[in-house]
Amino acid sequence: MINASASEVTADALAVMAETPDPRLREIMVALVRHLHAFITEVRLTEAEFREATAILNTMGQMTTDTHNEFVLMAGSLGVSAQVCLLNNGSNGATETSQNLLGPFWRMHSPLTENGGTIIRSDTPGPAMDVRLTIVDQAGNPVVGAEVDVWHTSPEGLYENQDEQQANMNLRGKFLTDATGTIRFSSVKPIGYPIPTETIVGKLLQAQGRHPYRPAHIHALVFKEGYKTLISQIYADDDPRIHTDPQFGVTKALLGAFRRHDEPHPVRKDVAAPWWSLDHRLVLEPGVAVLPKPPIK
Amino acid sequence: MINASASEVTADALAVMAETPDPRLREIMVALVRHLHAFITEVRLTEAEFREATAILNTMGQMTTDTHNEFVLMAGSLGVSAQVCLLNNGSNGATETSQNLLGPFWRMHSPLTENGGTIIRSDTPGPAMDVRLTIVDQAGNPVVGAEVDVWHTSPEGLYENQDEQQANMNLRGKFLTDATGTIRFSSVKPIGYPIPTETIVGKLLQAQGRHPYRPAHIHALVFKEGYKTLISQIYADDDPRIHTDPQFGVTKALLGAFRRHDEPHPVRKDVAAPWWSLDHRLVLEPGVAVLPKPPIK
Repeated sequence: MINASASEVTADALAVMAETPDPRLREIMVALVRHLHAFITEVRLTEAEFREATAILNTMGQMTTDTHNEFVLMAGSLGVSAQVCLLNNGSNGATETSQNLLGPFWRMHSPLTENGGTIIRSDTPGPAMDVRLTIVDQAGNPVVGAEVDVWHTSPEGLYENQDEQQANMNLRGKFLTDATGTIRFSSVKPIGYPIPTETIVGKLLQAQGRHPYRPAHIHALVFKEGYKTLISQIYADDDPRIHTDPQFGVTKALLGAFRRHDEPHPVRKDVAAPWWSLDHRLVLEPGVAVLPKPPIK
Repeated sequence: MINASASEVTADALAVMAETPDPRLREIMVALVRHLHAFITEVRLTEAEFREATAILNTMGQMTTDTHNEFVLMAGSLGVSAQVCLLNNGSNGATETSQNLLGPFWRMHSPLTENGGTIIRSDTPGPAMDVRLTIVDQAGNPVVGAEVDVWHTSPEGLYENQDEQQANMNLRGKFLTDATGTIRFSSVKPIGYPIPTETIVGKLLQAQGRHPYRPAHIHALVFKEGYKTLISQIYADDDPRIHTDPQFGVTKALLGAFRRHDEPHPVRKDVAAPWWSLDHRLVLEPGVAVLPKPPIK
């Protein structure tokens, strides 16, 4: 059409979007254009800000590599990743879910480890931690024979593939749930670590006075035919930044009670107090069991 | 915070944005997160769609080069560029404006050409066109001594720097307005041409059944100290696609009356009928006279 004002342009663009043949693409494009134009009108975006915005978006795409995804990092930093997760799981947002963000550090072929074994595969100083995870279905029944990948950082905040001091696959393991739906392993207590800050996201956090540290967490990926693959993280409730995750990932269902013990460990004679234990339950939901491809783009 | 639902994540993200120290960044980030989350909730974006969206955004940034800007092309294709232009000019959208989109084809150092001269610099088949542009201020008074860059495509739809058949700077010229605020030149009639389609934008247009052809237009860039530099395009009212510009650029103020003449040209004996004439008025607005840098990112 031939327009004379910004509001006429908006109406024109919406009318064009409304002609999209595919119903889902139409729904998305109409809503996108409506919200995008409403945002711009509301803040009265200047021409200089518009040019800067397009330059920032281009730079973000150009920062993305096989091992870094700037748009995913930004989506997390604006709460979008957590929002999408909670909208699409837990009976479409109606109930709590154990689903969470995958993050970029999952690796395939984690070593199969016996229940009750350790995932410490090279000398890793730090407080000891015993973990028990129970996998249940939505009715609360144990899921037997599920594959559970776990991975977490060292007490220095580094995954093994970021750290030359750690052996290959240190603090990673694959377990099978037993007849009670449980896996058990010993490890060291992870600590929070910063998301990448040499990024547009880093500049935003700095401008907003936000720290980049994710609270300490243990990742779990649970695979069992007949259920939606569970991508989860269990967060340490004693982390000082548990309320200020820059990725907005901490949920009530995934707040792990990391219990401190000042008494001697009942079994492991090599463990000095204090040591920690975690006993957490994760819920599988109905769906298709598929494995993500590492790294998730 | 520790959240249990998508709506709690949204409230959390908004609360974090509201803590941004800089007032303008705060205003933009709060509105951005509110509209972005509202869009996602409204369409109930799936996890697969979310992953596809981040992949598309990364690809768009990676498609951008020194001579192609995919995010600017997309902004145009969603009506955002036209919206931002109309919001920020014409007394902040209250009145008509001659401002429009720059596009990627402006070149510095266009050859200074005498008023009444031609900008045909190499053999360029096609219908003749005489152009008169009058530059006025908002009160309607002529602006004398303004520098006016004009550029347009050949009748085959190509700018000279896209076309080996054309001489350097063909169909480009720089003029100075005379005592009546006018410039005059002869040329050939331009034709519409497609925006780049080997792009994400091209895929979107195809999925939406939209053609990629911009209606025929003449670009003008007007520079005069004491006024905001005018970036303009005058659109051919006889173009069959005048109502369906994929960049939403055509405005009432810039709808050019391209008048067809079937009588012999009164002066130019070499011109065969039909030939065209255009007589258009462009309005300078108060502001700072700055030149854009080519190409505009």
